[in-house]
Amino acid sequence: MTETLHDPSSRGFASDNYAGVHPEVLEAIASANGGHQVSYGADVYTAHLQDVFATHFGEGVEVFPVFNGTGANVTALQSMLPRWGAVISASTAHINVDEGGAPERVGGIKLLTVPSPDGKLTPELIDLEAWGWGDEHRAQPLVVSITQSTELGTLYSVEEVRAIADHAHARGMKLHMDGARIANAAASLGVPMKDFTTDAGVDVLSFGGTKNGLLFGEAVVVLNPAASDGLVFLRKLNMQLASKLRFVSAQLIALLEGDLWLRSAQHANQMAARLRGSLEQLVSTGAISGLGFSQPTQANAVFAVLPADAANRLRERFHFYDWDATKQEVRWMCAFDTTEADVDAFVDGIRAELAVRVEERA
Amino acid sequence: MTETLHDPSSRGFASDNYAGVHPEVLEAIASANGGHQVSYGADVYTAHLQDVFATHFGEGVEVFPVFNGTGANVTALQSMLPRWGAVISASTAHINVDEGGAPERVGGIKLLTVPSPDGKLTPELIDLEAWGWGDEHRAQPLVVSITQSTELGTLYSVEEVRAIADHAHARGMKLHMDGARIANAAASLGVPMKDFTTDAGVDVLSFGGTKNGLLFGEAVVVLNPAASDGLVFLRKLNMQLASKLRFVSAQLIALLEGDLWLRSAQHANQMAARLRGSLEQLVSTGAISGLGFSQPTQANAVFAVLPADAANRLRERFHFYDWDATKQEVRWMCAFDTTEADVDAFVDGIRAELAVRVEERA
Amino acid sequence: MTETLHDPSSRGFASDNYAGVHPEVLEAIASANGGHQVSYGADVYTAHLQDVFATHFGEGVEVFPVFNGTGANVTALQSMLPRWGAVISASTAHINVDEGGAPERVGGIKLLTVPSPDGKLTPELIDLEAWGWGDEHRAQPLVVSITQSTELGTLYSVEEVRAIADHAHARGMKLHMDGARIANAAASLGVPMKDFTTDAGVDVLSFGGTKNGLLFGEAVVVLNPAASDGLVFLRKLNMQLASKLRFVSAQLIALLEGDLWLRSAQHANQMAARLRGSLEQLVSTGAISGLGFSQPTQANAVFAVLPADAANRLRERFHFYDWDATKQEVRWMCAFDTTEADVDAFVDGIRAELAVRVEERA
Amino acid sequence: MTETLHDPSSRGFASDNYAGVHPEVLEAIASANGGHQVSYGADVYTAHLQDVFATHFGEGVEVFPVFNGTGANVTALQSMLPRWGAVISASTAHINVDEGGAPERVGGIKLLTVPSPDGKLTPELIDLEAWGWGDEHRAQPLVVSITQSTELGTLYSVEEVRAIADHAHARGMKLHMDGARIANAAASLGVPMKDFTTDAGVDVLSFGGTKNGLLFGEAVVVLNPAASDGLVFLRKLNMQLASKLRFVSAQLIALLEGDLWLRSAQHANQMAARLRGSLEQLVSTGAISGLGFSQPTQANAVFAVLPADAANRLRERFHFYDWDATKQEVRWMCAFDTTEADVDAFVDGIRAELAVRVEERA
Repeated sequence: MTETLHDPSSRGFASDNYAGVHPEVLEAIASANGGHQVSYGADVYTAHLQDVFATHFGEGVEVFPVFNGTGANVTALQSMLPRWGAVISASTAHINVDEGGAPERVGGIKLLTVPSPDGKLTPELIDLEAWGWGDEHRAQPLVVSITQSTELGTLYSVEEVRAIADHAHARGMKLHMDGARIANAAASLGVPMKDFTTDAGVDVLSFGGTKNGLLFGEAVVVLNPAASDGLVFLRKLNMQLASKLRFVSAQLIALLEGDLWLRSAQHANQMAARLRGSLEQLVSTGAISGLGFSQPTQANAVFAVLPADAANRLRERFHFYDWDATKQEVRWMCAFDTTEADVDAFVDGIRAELAVRVEERA
Repeated sequence: MTETLHDPSSRGFASDNYAGVHPEVLEAIASANGGHQVSYGADVYTAHLQDVFATHFGEGVEVFPVFNGTGANVTALQSMLPRWGAVISASTAHINVDEGGAPERVGGIKLLTVPSPDGKLTPELIDLEAWGWGDEHRAQPLVVSITQSTELGTLYSVEEVRAIADHAHARGMKLHMDGARIANAAASLGVPMKDFTTDAGVDVLSFGGTKNGLLFGEAVVVLNPAASDGLVFLRKLNMQLASKLRFVSAQLIALLEGDLWLRSAQHANQMAARLRGSLEQLVSTGAISGLGFSQPTQANAVFAVLPADAANRLRERFHFYDWDATKQEVRWMCAFDTTEADVDAFVDGIRAELAVRVEERA
Repeated sequence: MTETLHDPSSRGFASDNYAGVHPEVLEAIASANGGHQVSYGADVYTAHLQDVFATHFGEGVEVFPVFNGTGANVTALQSMLPRWGAVISASTAHINVDEGGAPERVGGIKLLTVPSPDGKLTPELIDLEAWGWGDEHRAQPLVVSITQSTELGTLYSVEEVRAIADHAHARGMKLHMDGARIANAAASLGVPMKDFTTDAGVDVLSFGGTKNGLLFGEAVVVLNPAASDGLVFLRKLNMQLASKLRFVSAQLIALLEGDLWLRSAQHANQMAARLRGSLEQLVSTGAISGLGFSQPTQANAVFAVLPADAANRLRERFHFYDWDATKQEVRWMCAFDTTEADVDAFVDGIRAELAVRVEERA
Repeated sequence: MTETLHDPSSRGFASDNYAGVHPEVLEAIASANGGHQVSYGADVYTAHLQDVFATHFGEGVEVFPVFNGTGANVTALQSMLPRWGAVISASTAHINVDEGGAPERVGGIKLLTVPSPDGKLTPELIDLEAWGWGDEHRAQPLVVSITQSTELGTLYSVEEVRAIADHAHARGMKLHMDGARIANAAASLGVPMKDFTTDAGVDVLSFGGTKNGLLFGEAVVVLNPAASDGLVFLRKLNMQLASKLRFVSAQLIALLEGDLWLRSAQHANQMAARLRGSLEQLVSTGAISGLGFSQPTQANAVFAVLPADAANRLRERFHFYDWDATKQEVRWMCAFDTTEADVDAFVDGIRAELAVRVEERA
């Protein structure tokens, strides 16, 4: 009875949240359906979820499923901060540029932002804003927030996270990680997620599920219980507590109990690598001109620079966004459902737009 | 692979959000899956949803799907109010007692609450708080909020809503309706939803889907565009904008394009009526004693009074909540999936607890 | 050069903040003037103020001067509460009815209010809202706030405060006192302020200076340092930190180092007693009719009931406010500068309006 | 009875709010004292104040006296913005660095900040953040805020303000001016304040009185009534409404009815010029070495660079602050009460620290 209104065979490179739901996740929802379960989290799926997260992040972690990434970030940060706290982040951080001011307006949180060419913080960059404790005129920097993988498709190594955590802790600050694409990071680094979170000194994690194939669902994960307080209350008052929470938990279980999280992320990363590799080859062989890359491709994103008119013609067939129009910079994202054929067709499209004509080469 | 961890045949009377997802809704999610769709609401399902709501609420209404009821209420009320606004509601309103202070904390909204024995406001009750405009010491009462059906299972008639709307408008106030169970109200009143919303003068509606069989999903529905501003921004900054919004919209379409909304609500109401009717008969024939009813059953709730020890023994087999333990008052909710057998078994259980023994009767 | 634009000999009964500045307070401002002092509180006057408050409230109390009473209350309560906290108060409390929603909007605080005929809470009244701890759907009641003397001119005895403090503490709640008129309370009770604050179990006090003769100036006084956190930051971010703080502190010193606070409050109370006494005599002798009293006069307020037309004619000559126009209830306040002649003239005015004509008596 | 606890002859160069109250302002307070006046702004002084501001800023301006500068800024900006609004400012703006996060926390305002070497915005700098209207993921830039004179002691010319206003208005944004030191700007520019506010297109002004000799008192001044809404309510709910408001208004009248505002500001500027000039002469003649200047001195501030050890020894005798310790940059402020002797003694002190010894010169 309910019709499919769109073309399920059409995919683009605009965002990993343009993709739908992984079939295994849909099955998990169906498996959790039927009968009654206690609402608001006192269900068996949510109970089991705690164990599932413990296998990935260590015993004693606490998991609070929420609706979306903005909700996870704001709720996580509030739980780490007194009312007078501020958060140091890269100026490109999602919390700063893409959350409509929710951290400030809902969270009452001041962001102290640092420009960073690759979306990554370093101890040196952190120190540009890590000062002024005890001075009531200055919002107190008490949390550092990093994104893994970053909004620019780059990655922190395990050592880089640990260095930031040590630096933050040494200055009395806690470390938050926005893990909207944490699975892509783990897949790329080839290490367990625990290595660059719990074991590296991250205190609280926003775990991302939606971009990795869930219908919806993220989680605030407290890795260091001493670093967070009141999440059960904050989640509710921030309007992030689902009544039928079993279905968020069931999705996260489907993602994390087996290796779906890793398979999906590896695939998305591979598609980005294929796209980047194919294009680099075209560039290096001189088959196309006018294309450059503004960031390394370390996860599932390709940041490229190409002439605006070529980009606009490409966009008629493939969805993607400008990242910084003033620099003719675009972002191409791969998702769990991106196929090799999708990538190859896109590469063909780019080649057609940027092909060096014979007379040009001569 | 993903196991079912609970007993899908077990149902209780605790809450309509203990129920799961209606199978037709799950199908709709699957139908909307596959391929890429623009995220954050620029998809074809969300576009179509506008038409679907227009058939129910009239041309020109605007629909903003959100995650949950608290999010719908706070976002709706913010869109209707300046920063200095206050909302008049019954003291039993969900916004006052069950949202963890989100209206105040996230919305910055002062609630001016009025005690009401049946959960309903009247023009006279409204006037207890409708005063003080222009006095900056008083939070300005600029919106009246009513719940249909109410948190106490009671109903406003079409005429009662219209009288409240006229009264509010005459005093320069707008009318918000929390329609978490609006379908149950329509099913009980036997009229289109438009009759007691748009046509009765309601300005903005929180439309409830979750309690009526969605996995999750509510919507802020602007019935009077002059009464609301900035919802596109408020939904985002209130962390209520789903990235894969097509799936919220697809669920709402599944509910509202056909008659699923009405069938499900009628069924839940009928089950509550069956429960109430069976128990009243047992009381009137003297088969049981110690049971009373504290509210009329006008939708899908039965509010009853019975001895605490009997209630507690019943609870070992059937989930339900105390409503006001000091009065031995309990709430029994029926859902779209409550069966006649569920009701009859519960009635049997109650009879067993409250049966009048032969020696008592004699 | 700067002209006096008003009539300095005109006084009414509208509010104790219609009065100006006590001459000794003006002198103190002048004495603190001249030269430079560190701004924002690191001055010698603010340092000395700590000692002055210690003599009244005990060693170890901490004092944070602020601009006004609303600022003191909101800042005090925030320092006592996590983000999910709620405050139990009488529905007549200033924080509920006269602060424009600042506790909710600026403080993010939910108020759980209890109707009280005389503006006072009791353990029994508190218990109407003291429940639901641990339930995230309910704003968590973690502070009780009482006003001394109350907004209705009534008083808590030392024992009543202690009973409330014990009750609150036993339930894991803290006790806040809005002491906007604390001096009037002490003057009436005839005991040191410490008896019904620190020693009775009050945790944090909003100390009121403005209504007792300051130009402006209140203070958050932490009586129990374990009950409050972050005031130095909260005062600033709540926009309540004066740059030239020495002048707030100097005023408070002028009030509290000698007995100015007590003299002024005793006088205001005596004027209210004179007004009440004179009128009661007129009533008891049958000289006037139509006048009643709706509250006892225990501090500097008289709450009376009289015909609206008489009240309105009186208002042409004497400023005062309706308290509850629906009950023809008015409030008459006396201030530190109210004179016996002021009272007597007002009594004469009332007598003229309500005099029983000879033919009536007969 | 109230003792003077400090040395009224001691003055430093730390801040213009280390200074006390101008004697004419104290007289004005005394003149406004005595008798009763309606509280909360319905007094004759506040009424007259409207006329006084009209003479400076034009007919139809609306004046709302508040307690302090942070309160003025947050309240002004809230009145100009919907809940989803953001403010473009220089990263050095007081609202960004010195208000403890009040704009974000109390105001719910996102700041979009732009680095600026001299504390001034330009249309080009504004455009770095003036984009993204209609995109709900981005806090909507709807107000530009500039400070006159700036936090770095620099000045906007009349033409520069007008260019910014035109630019902001052309993009649908309003212009706010933080005039904490507006009098110093007018004194330096040698034009009426109206020239670079109302007539240059500023919509709402935070008028500063405290730094120019008031005990306390600032005002939100609405120059363009179409650009601001709800100030009467916002001032109260932001806890910025003084009960004895007549005394704030009387001070502002004292400042603005005659030329006290201009005399005081001119004097402070002259003292800064004297300091700067004396030091530049010492530098140019080679009498001292190691001193540089990091900003032009256009109002009452001197920003200098000198060796930290010299600065620290100087600080033992003269109060002043580091501005940026990493650059050995300090700030020296002059106030209305700074004397020529103060300046000369300070210059002597600096000369003693930085004197070039004969053997060095040789």
